[in-house]
Amino acid sequence: MKVGFIGLGRMGTAMADRILGGGHEIAVYNRTTAKCADLISRGAKLTETVAEAARFGDVVITMLENDGALSNVALGDSGLVASMAKGAIHVAMGTHSISLIKKLTAAHTDAGQILIGAPVMGRPPVAAAGQLGILAGGPTAAIEKCQPLFAVMGRRTFEAGKEPISAAAAKISVNLILACAIEAMGEGFALAEKCGLAGPAFLDILTDGLFAAPAYKTYGKIIAEKSYFGDPGFTATTGLKDINLALAAGESVGVPTPALNASRDRLLAAIANGHGDRDWTVMALEQARASGIA
Amino acid sequence: MKVGFIGLGRMGTAMADRILGGGHEIAVYNRTTAKCADLISRGAKLTETVAEAARFGDVVITMLENDGALSNVALGDSGLVASMAKGAIHVAMGTHSISLIKKLTAAHTDAGQILIGAPVMGRPPVAAAGQLGILAGGPTAAIEKCQPLFAVMGRRTFEAGKEPISAAAAKISVNLILACAIEAMGEGFALAEKCGLAGPAFLDILTDGLFAAPAYKTYGKIIAEKSYFGDPGFTATTGLKDINLALAAGESVGVPTPALNASRDRLLAAIANGHGDRDWTVMALEQARASGIA
Amino acid sequence: MKVGFIGLGRMGTAMADRILGGGHEIAVYNRTTAKCADLISRGAKLTETVAEAARFGDVVITMLENDGALSNVALGDSGLVASMAKGAIHVAMGTHSISLIKKLTAAHTDAGQILIGAPVMGRPPVAAAGQLGILAGGPTAAIEKCQPLFAVMGRRTFEAGKEPISAAAAKISVNLILACAIEAMGEGFALAEKCGLAGPAFLDILTDGLFAAPAYKTYGKIIAEKSYFGDPGFTATTGLKDINLALAAGESVGVPTPALNASRDRLLAAIANGHGDRDWTVMALEQARASGIA
Amino acid sequence: MKVGFIGLGRMGTAMADRILGGGHEIAVYNRTTAKCADLISRGAKLTETVAEAARFGDVVITMLENDGALSNVALGDSGLVASMAKGAIHVAMGTHSISLIKKLTAAHTDAGQILIGAPVMGRPPVAAAGQLGILAGGPTAAIEKCQPLFAVMGRRTFEAGKEPISAAAAKISVNLILACAIEAMGEGFALAEKCGLAGPAFLDILTDGLFAAPAYKTYGKIIAEKSYFGDPGFTATTGLKDINLALAAGESVGVPTPALNASRDRLLAAIANGHGDRDWTVMALEQARASGIA
Repeated sequence: MKVGFIGLGRMGTAMADRILGGGHEIAVYNRTTAKCADLISRGAKLTETVAEAARFGDVVITMLENDGALSNVALGDSGLVASMAKGAIHVAMGTHSISLIKKLTAAHTDAGQILIGAPVMGRPPVAAAGQLGILAGGPTAAIEKCQPLFAVMGRRTFEAGKEPISAAAAKISVNLILACAIEAMGEGFALAEKCGLAGPAFLDILTDGLFAAPAYKTYGKIIAEKSYFGDPGFTATTGLKDINLALAAGESVGVPTPALNASRDRLLAAIANGHGDRDWTVMALEQARASGIA
Repeated sequence: MKVGFIGLGRMGTAMADRILGGGHEIAVYNRTTAKCADLISRGAKLTETVAEAARFGDVVITMLENDGALSNVALGDSGLVASMAKGAIHVAMGTHSISLIKKLTAAHTDAGQILIGAPVMGRPPVAAAGQLGILAGGPTAAIEKCQPLFAVMGRRTFEAGKEPISAAAAKISVNLILACAIEAMGEGFALAEKCGLAGPAFLDILTDGLFAAPAYKTYGKIIAEKSYFGDPGFTATTGLKDINLALAAGESVGVPTPALNASRDRLLAAIANGHGDRDWTVMALEQARASGIA
Repeated sequence: MKVGFIGLGRMGTAMADRILGGGHEIAVYNRTTAKCADLISRGAKLTETVAEAARFGDVVITMLENDGALSNVALGDSGLVASMAKGAIHVAMGTHSISLIKKLTAAHTDAGQILIGAPVMGRPPVAAAGQLGILAGGPTAAIEKCQPLFAVMGRRTFEAGKEPISAAAAKISVNLILACAIEAMGEGFALAEKCGLAGPAFLDILTDGLFAAPAYKTYGKIIAEKSYFGDPGFTATTGLKDINLALAAGESVGVPTPALNASRDRLLAAIANGHGDRDWTVMALEQARASGIA
Repeated sequence: MKVGFIGLGRMGTAMADRILGGGHEIAVYNRTTAKCADLISRGAKLTETVAEAARFGDVVITMLENDGALSNVALGDSGLVASMAKGAIHVAMGTHSISLIKKLTAAHTDAGQILIGAPVMGRPPVAAAGQLGILAGGPTAAIEKCQPLFAVMGRRTFEAGKEPISAAAAKISVNLILACAIEAMGEGFALAEKCGLAGPAFLDILTDGLFAAPAYKTYGKIIAEKSYFGDPGFTATTGLKDINLALAAGESVGVPTPALNASRDRLLAAIANGHGDRDWTVMALEQARASGIA
């Protein structure tokens, strides 16, 4: 297939590279062109404008960091909506707000184009290995058309609804549950510790059965070892952005989220106390602090 | 070994049966003697009083439903503390409050006896299969002495601290994290559903990677299928009792628990709306209600 | 009237003194007799037992610090229920739990006696001035009979329902709202301060109109001036007891209380950080801490 | 003085009318000119553009409904920043976000102009009577210069800091405390009612002493009488906007707000259940629902 690809950060680069390796033709666009060098050396075509990438093939993928970037690229003058051919497909693979995806769906539909929401689960190394989980929401036929691309980027494509916002909500909801799990661990570890049980021993108990899953093993290890100040996998500030996406989604469709708010307040307190650049498990450090043990 | 066993409910019976099957001598006591019939037919000795069970061997196990029952059995006139020999071991395997376990530890110590806190993870069928997770807290030598008993009841004995309360806290903290996970799922599923994604589809996404664990698969399935009114694995009212144990523990050692409180308030609302006897995942039903979709 | 009076702490002494000054005959009982000396010198009769106080007149008032004390005095052997004449009235003026008041109502009714729940609003100096607010719940005729006593103790008797628990709930609910107001101020003052507005200036704005009430003026002043470590009007530990009464009440009748829980968690964190003996406005200090400004 | 006035909604019209009545010259601008008719008939000058209003005198007042409107008027092409003379004063009297006020302060400063943040407390009838509370934040000299205008609009000008954001924060923080008071009342009234005490009786008790203030009397009356569906003084949807301003403020300066979040979630649930256009005390209706009594 011929694919335009916009947004060559760490995730985007790894994903574009998989597409290229899968035998597809790809035209890349990034605000700072330097980031495209490797891909170009491997055969990708460099485009100078969003519009050019938009018209390169029948499909254009965006992997942008936030709503602002996607809004500029898609809705700005000479943006995707203005530039894509009728019938062309925009696959938005970043994590975006329900309200922007809704707005964008309407804009593409009005222009006779198709939007697929397809946020992903996995970090850059997972992307590089083509092992992402891809949450695809949108018209079935369009998703099927893109499946060859998803197949090289991911280990599995999940049917995440007929609407792009369903897929966005799926990603946001998983993040919501993750933020809650971290706060809950903070509370549980603090209680165990104040009753004389060391973190690693409690982690072992916790993840042996009911909670034998990566979310608990990965984040629980940081909490158990109090290694909050190591290399952050995901910073507190970024975590707060994700929580905000969930809060905004909840507000836009009418879903109150008290457990998420407990995570939000804990994370915000951690940030207020100077830990914005630390791993977002500092939620548990702040919980320990509120428990008088940090 | 010679073991006294007090508390022959469904869990206790299954556990006593494993001990018997393991070649140990066992003397059972239960307030309603009828529940002991099967065990007696299989070779257990029936005792008429707590005191008799207390003196049958070097170890007496209690598997009682709540603090009231344990307090009566252990601290009452002619109870365990009054009856056990010096140096004898009491293994408390029910889920009890930090404050009672603390009080009981002191009472046994004053009487020259030893208390082991050893709450378990697993339901009756798991107990019957000898596959419990046993969280053992107390003096190392005493725990080692009981290990032959633990070995027939459980698949694994976890070292849960040098103090009985550490083990109690471990169990309570796991329950805390579970209650939080259910509320978080309630929020996540409501958000997904209001954005057009059906429960089972979201469950599939959720439990494929980060949350591929029994807690999410088991409870998530009930939520995804809205099968709240089926046979309850664990009722809302019982769930609230466990949450209260965690809140009381948090208060007694100084640990605030906002995420747990979100679960508590949701569960309490479900109970206030008539769902006390339903499975405690009705938390998610109440969350759906608050979201305008139930 | 002839009145028995049990519980001569600071509040009870001031109240009994008002009754004495109102021309009534009073027989006092206190666990530590020394506290009754002043009242006796002014004409009160000393009784040696609860039973004696219970039979002195048609009315016996209790002003006890907590549920444990009231339970002992009323439900113990030779307690009020066992000792009062048929038709006699017990006026419980302490702040007690819904569940104890419910149990006590049933016990008195079974014994042909009458219980009035009549908790009060006001501190010792207010009691000494006969200016308490008295929240009276119970049978109308019984309340009317006691009105001469209420008239000398309080500035106003509120009709707080036909059941003693209604009056208990009224007191508990006012306390609930107060605990929430303090947490809310903590949040508001922290926000104002972090935006450059000093506490006293914000206090002036807050209490000028919408919130021109003693709750905000009194507690707001401590928060605005950060005088948390002065003479505590009401300690954090005592505040937590009151919050617990409200949480227990909510649980017993099915009322979730998320705002109260926010206060509970803040107060518990303050206590966990060593401020249990400080004024309960340390909630705001802990809020400031979580906001990075304390 | 010569004053430009932009934003002639119900509040703005009442305020402009007071200025006119105070003997000042006023030039008005509104997107829909019709709303200015009355003022013009009474002597106000109609302007066709923001720029014209901006240059009419040394002071221009904005009373706009939200951030979007203020941003357009102040920061747009030919907006206030682009049009006002050096040294001129912009008095922003609407309730706006900390982040917009911060941005606007910088823009005016860069242009050699002065921003005063001066949000008000009071509804349209209060404005019509010149009895607003005016929270003025900014350079002292500029505030003093505007005092003749404040004097005819308000009963009192509060010194709300040297920065415009301090004044914005003051207003937002008062609203935060109000939202919390309503949720707290919802919880307290539900508890009282479920224990047999009718709303009006509890209201009487509540507002007699500690809480004898308009916030409790006004909103408490609606809750006590369950008159949620009468003419809304302030709708749930508008209330949520105010709560969001407080949440955003908390996030921007680092203040977690758990009590406010309890209000937010309750209000959001009320809106999700169809009550967005009702008075925002529907928070208490939703609380009653969660308590099984509505």
